[in-house]
Amino acid sequence: MSTSERENLLHIFNEQLRHFSTDTILFHQAVAERLGLNSTDHKCLDIILRNQPITAGMLSDLTGLTTGTVTGVIDRLEKAGYVFREKDPEDRRKVIIRVYTKKAEDEIMSHLESFGQSMKAMLDQYDNEQIRFLFNFFERSRGIIQTETLKLKK
Amino acid sequence: MSTSERENLLHIFNEQLRHFSTDTILFHQAVAERLGLNSTDHKCLDIILRNQPITAGMLSDLTGLTTGTVTGVIDRLEKAGYVFREKDPEDRRKVIIRVYTKKAEDEIMSHLESFGQSMKAMLDQYDNEQIRFLFNFFERSRGIIQTETLKLKK
Repeated sequence: MSTSERENLLHIFNEQLRHFSTDTILFHQAVAERLGLNSTDHKCLDIILRNQPITAGMLSDLTGLTTGTVTGVIDRLEKAGYVFREKDPEDRRKVIIRVYTKKAEDEIMSHLESFGQSMKAMLDQYDNEQIRFLFNFFERSRGIIQTETLKLKK
Repeated sequence: MSTSERENLLHIFNEQLRHFSTDTILFHQAVAERLGLNSTDHKCLDIILRNQPITAGMLSDLTGLTTGTVTGVIDRLEKAGYVFREKDPEDRRKVIIRVYTKKAEDEIMSHLESFGQSMKAMLDQYDNEQIRFLFNFFERSRGIIQTETLKLKK
């Protein structure tokens, strides 16, 4: 294969990744709309669920979002009835965020059920070695994405 | 490999995909913040760039977002100086959206340059057959994501 053929292949693959990220964001935006949130709020809710109890500062560190953005996210999540703020019993000066876990998980999962089934049917066509190859690709990609997100924050 | 080993593998792979989508959304949110937008606005700008001139109704169809959300997106993009509305010269009752293309492309690309270089370095370690395999996986996944986004809209 010539250099230009390789270049073409990488070009169409990069375009595919760009479209995939657009589709991913629009899907999560559609789920979020059903929950009365935007896609960033929705993903922050997921992160709070996995790390609660959490402070606004920790959420900012975990997400790479500015503290101003994080405050807006928590306000919207609180207004929509997914999370609540409370004083940290171990340090009354700190405010921690907790999730109404069952409500959040039930409502998120109800919108992801059909997606999960379709993905499962597709993945059934891949053998274990292929799944491990894909896992590795996503792991490496996540490393890059996380590093680049931190760079943007500086 | 037993059924439960296969189940475990699929479970950790699904968790990986879930984290990947979170990382993707947070990365685009970080880029969007640099541009004074949110991640949905940012991706809509990308879609308008590729399809302009476009109406709000067409943007709603392409993205799966409600017309109410689309109106807010266009308002913010207009306020940030990326797009403008004008009357369609062929049908004065229609409003079309155009992008200040150079400003949008220059500003988006300046924040994606480092990410592009890191991805390129990683992809250089994959041969053509592997890239084609990944391309196929992303293509099939996009089909599912698009179908599920439309289902959520109903």
